[in-house]
Amino acid sequence: MALINDLMKALQVLPGVGAKTAQRLTFYLLQKDKSGGKHLAETLLQAVEHVNECEACRTLTEHKLCRICMNPARTAKHVCVVETPADIIQIEQATDFKGKYFVLHGKLSPIDGIGPNELKLDKLVKMLIECEEMTIATGSTVEGETTAQYLSHLAEKGGIKVTRLAHGVPLGGDLEYIDNSTLAHAFASRTEL
Amino acid sequence: MALINDLMKALQVLPGVGAKTAQRLTFYLLQKDKSGGKHLAETLLQAVEHVNECEACRTLTEHKLCRICMNPARTAKHVCVVETPADIIQIEQATDFKGKYFVLHGKLSPIDGIGPNELKLDKLVKMLIECEEMTIATGSTVEGETTAQYLSHLAEKGGIKVTRLAHGVPLGGDLEYIDNSTLAHAFASRTEL
Repeated sequence: MALINDLMKALQVLPGVGAKTAQRLTFYLLQKDKSGGKHLAETLLQAVEHVNECEACRTLTEHKLCRICMNPARTAKHVCVVETPADIIQIEQATDFKGKYFVLHGKLSPIDGIGPNELKLDKLVKMLIECEEMTIATGSTVEGETTAQYLSHLAEKGGIKVTRLAHGVPLGGDLEYIDNSTLAHAFASRTEL
Repeated sequence: MALINDLMKALQVLPGVGAKTAQRLTFYLLQKDKSGGKHLAETLLQAVEHVNECEACRTLTEHKLCRICMNPARTAKHVCVVETPADIIQIEQATDFKGKYFVLHGKLSPIDGIGPNELKLDKLVKMLIECEEMTIATGSTVEGETTAQYLSHLAEKGGIKVTRLAHGVPLGGDLEYIDNSTLAHAFASRTEL
């Protein structure tokens, strides 16, 4: 039982998975879908070992630079700043944005000790050298708005046009939970700060 | 992105995990808990490779015989027949049963092509040689009852006492929420206080 118990405990690292669900998943994997389980284990091991932050834009990638940063068809003149790599997937699916992204991996939150250094904004500043328009796509929570404000000052110092996703994004909502058409609408009617 | 996409697909082998949840889990594992993810992958790989059915009772184990079958303190005179290995965990937690188990990994269901051979009842017959009481703990669905009926004939041929889990009102349950057939059963088999 040792290995089975270990697996039940290990599965509880997944968010939303408690003891009972972990037990159900364990028996499912070991009884019903061993090959799927093996594939999952191998893929997860590979991903955990090889996936890191893109050196330019900080999204997750298995290479030094991500697919978007390496793509010569994407213009460096338009940079979209998002909170998480998942936000990039959302925007890619919903819009025809042809610029580059920068991932903050969070938002400014002095109370949690998250300042410009933690968000590695020095990397963003590097990206802004060629940039003509920066679109801020942080969520419209308090911290998201604060972050947007800070970023907009940063960009304006460099004479860069700053835009923000249009309202249409529900207040207090994270990008992850917004449907594609709302997001497309918000992206198309982004407003200058 | 290839590895990240692979992981999103691989996670969908888990029951109840669709594309959106898989995406959330992927980014959680790669951003927030890489070490937990690595541990999960390694444990899952080990478990998938080494866990098999106990040669005697068919529960899942990483050894030839499971912990319960190898325990000399457990008597072979009382055998409890369950549908799944998870049922053993439930019974072990709830009762002080000191006998052995047999796991059917399913129930008789001619319409799905599951007969005595698929349930490997020949292994159960081997366990019954030393057995004096067999407790049938299959669920009380149609197939569960059919299976119980079949097993009871099997055991009676060997002169073994056959018992079945009692049906009745769950502890802490209000009568209001109990279905009629359970209530009828509980009433018919009322016990003297």
